[in-house]
Amino acid sequence: MILNCYFQGILRSQQIRQVIKCGRMASSKASHAEEDKFLKDVFDLSMRQTVQKSRDRCTPVLNFRTPQEIQGRIDLGLHPAGESNGEVLKLCEKVFENSVNTGHPRFFNQLFAGLDSYGFAGSIMLDALNTQGHTYEISPALTVIELEVVKHMLKFVGYEGGEGTFNPGGSYSNMLAMNVARIRNFPDSKVTGVSGLPLLVNFCSEQSHYSAQKNSALLGFGEANCKPVKCDERGKMIPEDLEKSILEAKEKGAAPFFVTATAGTTVLGAFDPFNEIADICERHNIWLHVDGAWGGSALLSEKHKHLCNGVERSDSFAWNPHKLMAAPVQTSVLLLKEKDLLRKSHSLNVPYLFQDDKPYDTSYDLGRSLVACGRKCDAFKLWVMWKSRGDSGFEKQIDKALDNAKYLTEAVKNHPHFRLVIPELEFTNVPFWYVPPSLRGETENEEFFTKLGKIVPIVKKRMQISGLVLVGYTSLPNIPTFFRMTIANEQVEKEDLDFLLAEIERNAADL
Amino acid sequence: MILNCYFQGILRSQQIRQVIKCGRMASSKASHAEEDKFLKDVFDLSMRQTVQKSRDRCTPVLNFRTPQEIQGRIDLGLHPAGESNGEVLKLCEKVFENSVNTGHPRFFNQLFAGLDSYGFAGSIMLDALNTQGHTYEISPALTVIELEVVKHMLKFVGYEGGEGTFNPGGSYSNMLAMNVARIRNFPDSKVTGVSGLPLLVNFCSEQSHYSAQKNSALLGFGEANCKPVKCDERGKMIPEDLEKSILEAKEKGAAPFFVTATAGTTVLGAFDPFNEIADICERHNIWLHVDGAWGGSALLSEKHKHLCNGVERSDSFAWNPHKLMAAPVQTSVLLLKEKDLLRKSHSLNVPYLFQDDKPYDTSYDLGRSLVACGRKCDAFKLWVMWKSRGDSGFEKQIDKALDNAKYLTEAVKNHPHFRLVIPELEFTNVPFWYVPPSLRGETENEEFFTKLGKIVPIVKKRMQISGLVLVGYTSLPNIPTFFRMTIANEQVEKEDLDFLLAEIERNAADL
Repeated sequence: MILNCYFQGILRSQQIRQVIKCGRMASSKASHAEEDKFLKDVFDLSMRQTVQKSRDRCTPVLNFRTPQEIQGRIDLGLHPAGESNGEVLKLCEKVFENSVNTGHPRFFNQLFAGLDSYGFAGSIMLDALNTQGHTYEISPALTVIELEVVKHMLKFVGYEGGEGTFNPGGSYSNMLAMNVARIRNFPDSKVTGVSGLPLLVNFCSEQSHYSAQKNSALLGFGEANCKPVKCDERGKMIPEDLEKSILEAKEKGAAPFFVTATAGTTVLGAFDPFNEIADICERHNIWLHVDGAWGGSALLSEKHKHLCNGVERSDSFAWNPHKLMAAPVQTSVLLLKEKDLLRKSHSLNVPYLFQDDKPYDTSYDLGRSLVACGRKCDAFKLWVMWKSRGDSGFEKQIDKALDNAKYLTEAVKNHPHFRLVIPELEFTNVPFWYVPPSLRGETENEEFFTKLGKIVPIVKKRMQISGLVLVGYTSLPNIPTFFRMTIANEQVEKEDLDFLLAEIERNAADL
Repeated sequence: MILNCYFQGILRSQQIRQVIKCGRMASSKASHAEEDKFLKDVFDLSMRQTVQKSRDRCTPVLNFRTPQEIQGRIDLGLHPAGESNGEVLKLCEKVFENSVNTGHPRFFNQLFAGLDSYGFAGSIMLDALNTQGHTYEISPALTVIELEVVKHMLKFVGYEGGEGTFNPGGSYSNMLAMNVARIRNFPDSKVTGVSGLPLLVNFCSEQSHYSAQKNSALLGFGEANCKPVKCDERGKMIPEDLEKSILEAKEKGAAPFFVTATAGTTVLGAFDPFNEIADICERHNIWLHVDGAWGGSALLSEKHKHLCNGVERSDSFAWNPHKLMAAPVQTSVLLLKEKDLLRKSHSLNVPYLFQDDKPYDTSYDLGRSLVACGRKCDAFKLWVMWKSRGDSGFEKQIDKALDNAKYLTEAVKNHPHFRLVIPELEFTNVPFWYVPPSLRGETENEEFFTKLGKIVPIVKKRMQISGLVLVGYTSLPNIPTFFRMTIANEQVEKEDLDFLLAEIERNAADL
């Protein structure tokens, strides 16, 4: 039943006063109170299980269980009838208990870490606003905020006057860049497709993120037409090899159209030589995209921005604030030097979504320029953080992560039982091996390092099961498996890094 | 400074007891208290501004302002220094005041509406868990939950034994389906690309969602190779025209490989004749994809699931629970009848993310089968809702939306000043015109409806500025602009529908 009430509304925009009929749900007040209590309980549970636990190093990072164990512990099944709020809350508590606390300062497993309070606050508000970013009509404040955040980030890249868009993930940003480059080179192909065009090939370093290959497959160019360029020992693309590969492709009649360079590679944190790569791309009229998903945040630091020297000469730049800036997962942006390419590449202004006869400037309908229809307004989360921290807060955060990496590098270097994979630190990636008791004193040749590589997964497995610290590992072509340590969380202290090394020693004592 | 403490941890999986060193941040307790207070304030603000306002029809749906007005009212700029929690909170309050309350029962503008408390709760917890869905290692509970939700949804479509994945939006789901179909037909093209293949063409009805064309452009087939198939007066694809179009393409040497049929079109809510389309696709060995982003939820209702008769014969099905199921934006899933096609289409198992020597069955690393690297675990939000409601709760919700649409259809039909665009209701889309005083009594010919079409944007604009109700409009080929009314929010009552009609009358009184 709806009770009518009367609401004296001052309709500001028209400055007219009038009485309008409205209604209030009377019958469901009890259920509203219950729902509010449930929401409050969920908020408190979330605070307790993540924000508060993240501050307490006495809690584990995870309680390791196999899929089958979790399936046995949580009643996962969906049924015809629903359950009470109390039951659902209990289930949710179990979900937390069987999740990884990625906000814990000893979670080093990925290129993201930490649960920033301001980012989390932004997420909660964005969820409450529960809207899509395609038209200004339904996301007015969030639209102007996205434009403001993009404008601010463009300045750091050296793309003043460019444009950008937030996307669901860095792979998606890299994909959009590849598509925009194709359509800039072959504008008709938006309508006619790539059939009939010369073979389109693109290039990335052999240590770039796998999204370059995946996107090449997805967009119809094929994995094999994403040509890997050799890296030097530090993991940086060798420009001469790039140019050689471009010339080879041209000789075969193919059309090189896109190069992915990387600011902060996934494994070694290497920054490609952007100026030399830009020279080559200019000579051959090829789109230069920089995947700065991980290392783009270096731009925020006066001390470290030199790592990105030359990126201002690129055409597009992917940057994941959810990595080193510790914005919530996911907060990813693609920035472009030239304006209006997004629209030219993707627009399809259907009348059911985009109408021109609106009381606002419809160029603010951001969806007009995107492949996506609905889209979360992720920029808002970053805006809340940026308002709270300022540029200087982010700078401090980046500098601290680099300082920590330097500390760890020295600790590894000076410890008789650890070995660095690369001698010089460039970013927060610190790849290393541990020498277990049984291998000490052996000649440190290829065979020795292969043996070191074999103990890495064993130690990681033990640490994962004990749950006190989580760190990733990987191999590289010609380099046996090593710990791929990265530092992203501002809450990490030197003691956490000492703890990591001690924990590896403890778990490898019998090896 | 870190104070060392000692934590007696029972490491369950290994059942060993040991004393480990850990630490607690002591120096920052004051800032933690401030952060917690900020988070609490943000949660309360979110509750007040959305959940609570959504229940009170005396609040407006929006306070309309232009981009320039909002830019003048909120200090959007990002600066070198940060601001206090109090200042940030004030700014956030302004963001709410300059946003649309999509949870308001009189928000009818899109195919999503409502702010479900259980969905919102799921969102908050997911934000707190702040993780990615690519490996089981960092999202254990969330991974098994996604698999459970997918399994449950597969049953409704009739895809027992199939597979599925949650995606950022329906357009993305439709894109994945198109890519999987290409790779199933031409497996080598994942590596070699589409160059050298026959011209690949796909088909959708002229009233299907624009993502079909956009995806055809993105994936390299070209917009023009997404062939529009004619619809009948109700907006349903005409199967004969589809087959004609397929035969024409074949005659020209092209390779038809993909048909997008729609369960619940964007504008008229039409359901294509799936059985007849499936017959054609079987005859020509073409992948049948059903875009059920909007209408897929009909499957949850015993009374209305007949609308989807035949979808069990399709190869893939996109379904957006964030539409009629009122899950949070975004909650989108792609379901596939055949298992393992996602992996075959997208896998690229790089060693820095996917390792086989893990203490769990690594087939639970869902990212192995996807284009995306990082990905939100959106299924969890839906799981929380489903646990709370059960199938029957969703069924009630769908049935109520359809009942409301029936009520509105009758109200429009019986009101002398309104005209329906289509006589028969099929889903919750109710497209209609209003006859303003100046046009009453005129002969109802083409010219008359063209005139009706012209007043629609004027009335919408006035309603948008007054902010009491928000409803969309559109045109269709050969049909002048009309109100594209849809009902998605369970909180909508008949009085809200009466209010909409009254509000249109009020705003068109002088026209």
